[in-house]
Amino acid sequence: MCSCQCTHSADKITPKAIEPVTADSSDALITSTDALHPANVIVELCSLFYTNNWVTGTGGGISIKDGNKIYLAPSGVQKERMKPEDLFVLDHQTREYLRVPKVFKPSACTPLFMNCYDLRNAGACIHTHSQAAVMVSLLYENEFRISNIEQIKAIPKGFEPGYLSFFDTLTIPIIDNVAHEQDLEIPMQEIMKKYPHTVAVIVRRHGIFIWGENIWKAKIYNEAIDYLLELAVKMKGFGIRTDGGLGSEKRDVDPKIYDH
Amino acid sequence: MCSCQCTHSADKITPKAIEPVTADSSDALITSTDALHPANVIVELCSLFYTNNWVTGTGGGISIKDGNKIYLAPSGVQKERMKPEDLFVLDHQTREYLRVPKVFKPSACTPLFMNCYDLRNAGACIHTHSQAAVMVSLLYENEFRISNIEQIKAIPKGFEPGYLSFFDTLTIPIIDNVAHEQDLEIPMQEIMKKYPHTVAVIVRRHGIFIWGENIWKAKIYNEAIDYLLELAVKMKGFGIRTDGGLGSEKRDVDPKIYDH
Amino acid sequence: MCSCQCTHSADKITPKAIEPVTADSSDALITSTDALHPANVIVELCSLFYTNNWVTGTGGGISIKDGNKIYLAPSGVQKERMKPEDLFVLDHQTREYLRVPKVFKPSACTPLFMNCYDLRNAGACIHTHSQAAVMVSLLYENEFRISNIEQIKAIPKGFEPGYLSFFDTLTIPIIDNVAHEQDLEIPMQEIMKKYPHTVAVIVRRHGIFIWGENIWKAKIYNEAIDYLLELAVKMKGFGIRTDGGLGSEKRDVDPKIYDH
Amino acid sequence: MCSCQCTHSADKITPKAIEPVTADSSDALITSTDALHPANVIVELCSLFYTNNWVTGTGGGISIKDGNKIYLAPSGVQKERMKPEDLFVLDHQTREYLRVPKVFKPSACTPLFMNCYDLRNAGACIHTHSQAAVMVSLLYENEFRISNIEQIKAIPKGFEPGYLSFFDTLTIPIIDNVAHEQDLEIPMQEIMKKYPHTVAVIVRRHGIFIWGENIWKAKIYNEAIDYLLELAVKMKGFGIRTDGGLGSEKRDVDPKIYDH
Repeated sequence: MCSCQCTHSADKITPKAIEPVTADSSDALITSTDALHPANVIVELCSLFYTNNWVTGTGGGISIKDGNKIYLAPSGVQKERMKPEDLFVLDHQTREYLRVPKVFKPSACTPLFMNCYDLRNAGACIHTHSQAAVMVSLLYENEFRISNIEQIKAIPKGFEPGYLSFFDTLTIPIIDNVAHEQDLEIPMQEIMKKYPHTVAVIVRRHGIFIWGENIWKAKIYNEAIDYLLELAVKMKGFGIRTDGGLGSEKRDVDPKIYDH
Repeated sequence: MCSCQCTHSADKITPKAIEPVTADSSDALITSTDALHPANVIVELCSLFYTNNWVTGTGGGISIKDGNKIYLAPSGVQKERMKPEDLFVLDHQTREYLRVPKVFKPSACTPLFMNCYDLRNAGACIHTHSQAAVMVSLLYENEFRISNIEQIKAIPKGFEPGYLSFFDTLTIPIIDNVAHEQDLEIPMQEIMKKYPHTVAVIVRRHGIFIWGENIWKAKIYNEAIDYLLELAVKMKGFGIRTDGGLGSEKRDVDPKIYDH
Repeated sequence: MCSCQCTHSADKITPKAIEPVTADSSDALITSTDALHPANVIVELCSLFYTNNWVTGTGGGISIKDGNKIYLAPSGVQKERMKPEDLFVLDHQTREYLRVPKVFKPSACTPLFMNCYDLRNAGACIHTHSQAAVMVSLLYENEFRISNIEQIKAIPKGFEPGYLSFFDTLTIPIIDNVAHEQDLEIPMQEIMKKYPHTVAVIVRRHGIFIWGENIWKAKIYNEAIDYLLELAVKMKGFGIRTDGGLGSEKRDVDPKIYDH
Repeated sequence: MCSCQCTHSADKITPKAIEPVTADSSDALITSTDALHPANVIVELCSLFYTNNWVTGTGGGISIKDGNKIYLAPSGVQKERMKPEDLFVLDHQTREYLRVPKVFKPSACTPLFMNCYDLRNAGACIHTHSQAAVMVSLLYENEFRISNIEQIKAIPKGFEPGYLSFFDTLTIPIIDNVAHEQDLEIPMQEIMKKYPHTVAVIVRRHGIFIWGENIWKAKIYNEAIDYLLELAVKMKGFGIRTDGGLGSEKRDVDPKIYDH
């Protein structure tokens, strides 16, 4: 889930369901000794991503869909200290909360995770405030484009089964940020429709949303894309184009740097 | 608490109380099986911040106020090896030490933490030697200013309830460092009065002080601000202004870098 | 082992052996309470290398040869979550799989690991997607060359017993990447024959392969070489040549930078 | 201890003592349940420093003197996998080994650690291959000089009790590296005599030696100095002088960077 500093709750999704369900009935939804239970996986991965500086300062988050149940972390929680009992659980069909934690409000980017479930039939969505994503959003205009890097091959084609090849160009759209995170809902829907094959959207000066068929696919895409974003910033620092082909004639690089 | 390499003790606060209280009576103040007890939280977070290079070499520290009791780490202690029994406990009202550890001296930046408690009614204060803060203090004159970055929204407005919006500018004052840390007391008070809304003060070529209503708020502000400082240094490296607005016409960036 | 995002399996090695062996007979090959058993070491080091960003997003891998048995991780697995039961075991002589995990396919870079075993009599091979290796492959043409750095002394001469001296030049060949990882088999063989002394091959825009007499040697070479690659990128950032000798007259460095 | 890739053993110190002492009598020297026993501290800190990239690839090391006993790690050992039983113990007075591990050779930089014990009466010595130290040795001629940074205050004056003040200049000599590490013995002695106040010597294109009254002092100096080295490289990247005083008129910085 995503809490994104924003203190506005995502009221418009299911205002009537915000009243807390009794703990007894709903705690079962987030209580399991299975390490692979969605509630436990969200907690584990939020803690892991904290060490990468992806979700520090309560930024970013993870959501997982399990059947019709969507697990979401609340607004403003420290990701590395989060517990299963802090999670919201939402019914995908009725859009009513099946579980509301005692002290927290829903995250403002809940509608953005819903975009991934509604438009892409995703099984999980990750949102980070990755500095590499923010830097890329400042160094590229409307699209991040990178080609001819092995790690691209971890990203699915989207328009047909299978993954990008080494010679393909990975293209991730960049949209502008807005004042209130829930107002990204429509722009994100529009860009997802315009780029039907993408598994990620970069939000300028904000971060990135990445989804997948399940949480492990989403995690792999997130790691591979962030690797590429980080690499792209380093390449830019040396004046090397990220979509400039393989030949040296296509390189932008200063000949004094490229001296061997 | 803050130990800041400085070996001068903060004698002027409570000289008479420096004589060690007997262990029996005062150890209860720092002994608890509750992980959320202030003494345990200071130890846990100092260890965490060590891994971020924020408090290595005994630099920096954390202080927590619990009711009238102020918990402070001693001077010159290795932050990741600190134990609850190393902590000082100070009475906020009387300014007398309720507890003095056996081998350590009070930290020289105790008066600076007191500024946060006295002037801002803070519940906790964090001081780090963050390299991002030091670099920013070398790249900016009297204020660090950044706008239009999502992470800004983690920082409170200060002049009214609520948090900064994406389009607001976060402004953190920068004061010059002095030879003896306790001599920062008055300059820090003056800058806090001049910037009544800030939750942080950068000390040039030294580090940063960040406070909050409680330790968790202070930690979140610290993480979010350090994220912004680190990002700002990266942006500067590419010649991108941090308060330059959203439009490309306002960017300082070399068109050869911004090539997509 | 290496999974390298590539979903093509290395069928041509032992197509007939891909049918799963019964779990009972083959699980003994990867089950041991000895922390130094190859299956346990692969799992431990893949997890360690994940924290270095060397094998994130399922990239890269480790293979160990134990007598005639070659341990290999499958394609597309998350390296830090891998378990001994996920491993393939291959007979070096017959090239038949002694063990096939239930859900995974062989890695596409299996033939590349075989190159290390066949041509160099290696005891282990490590493949990473190290960003330092990728950056070096963009900043150097056909060879990475570095001299006069102490860490070079961790790398064997290759043409005779013993290690490089401080004044020697470490030379690592760089080959171009191809669309399908298994198609690197022949180019890698050719470059290994052309550089009979090297313990590593950099694959441009992809990563690096490093081998050694045993897994610990391979790990040490990998750490030392990656240190040198990372350092070289930093040196390039300051315009300092990596094979430019010791004297300042041979330095490429901007005199304004080298100001003391 | 220091193993420094060098495979030449430090034979000339105590050739006659290289024959292994029986395990029974000497194992007691390195066996203790006390976490603060020198053998345990060396193991713990080598593992910690591995995570900082200071001692990867078997580079660098730690030595501790306990009374007349000097604890040293062997040559070529992986620092994060080292165990107390891998350590050498040397008698400071007789220069004979009190304990020799079964499979390892003495480290080539043993004579360099002896310099710290003999010339400075140190209680411990740390040697790292810190990339910040190597970069500084490429960016500065014969001395690393930095002033007006708070972290300087962690470093002792050396010529009299007490620590450097904020306005002092920390000066660390840089000597050139040689082919065989033991041949650094005399150059290091000479520079230690020429800079009687320093607690550290940088070896160009190699790393740094740092010593202290005890291991904890040496560790604190090491952390503080490495922080300063790392910061200095960042400052150089922006064209900011590290010993350029406080005033903007003394800054070397590009006015386009220093734009606020």
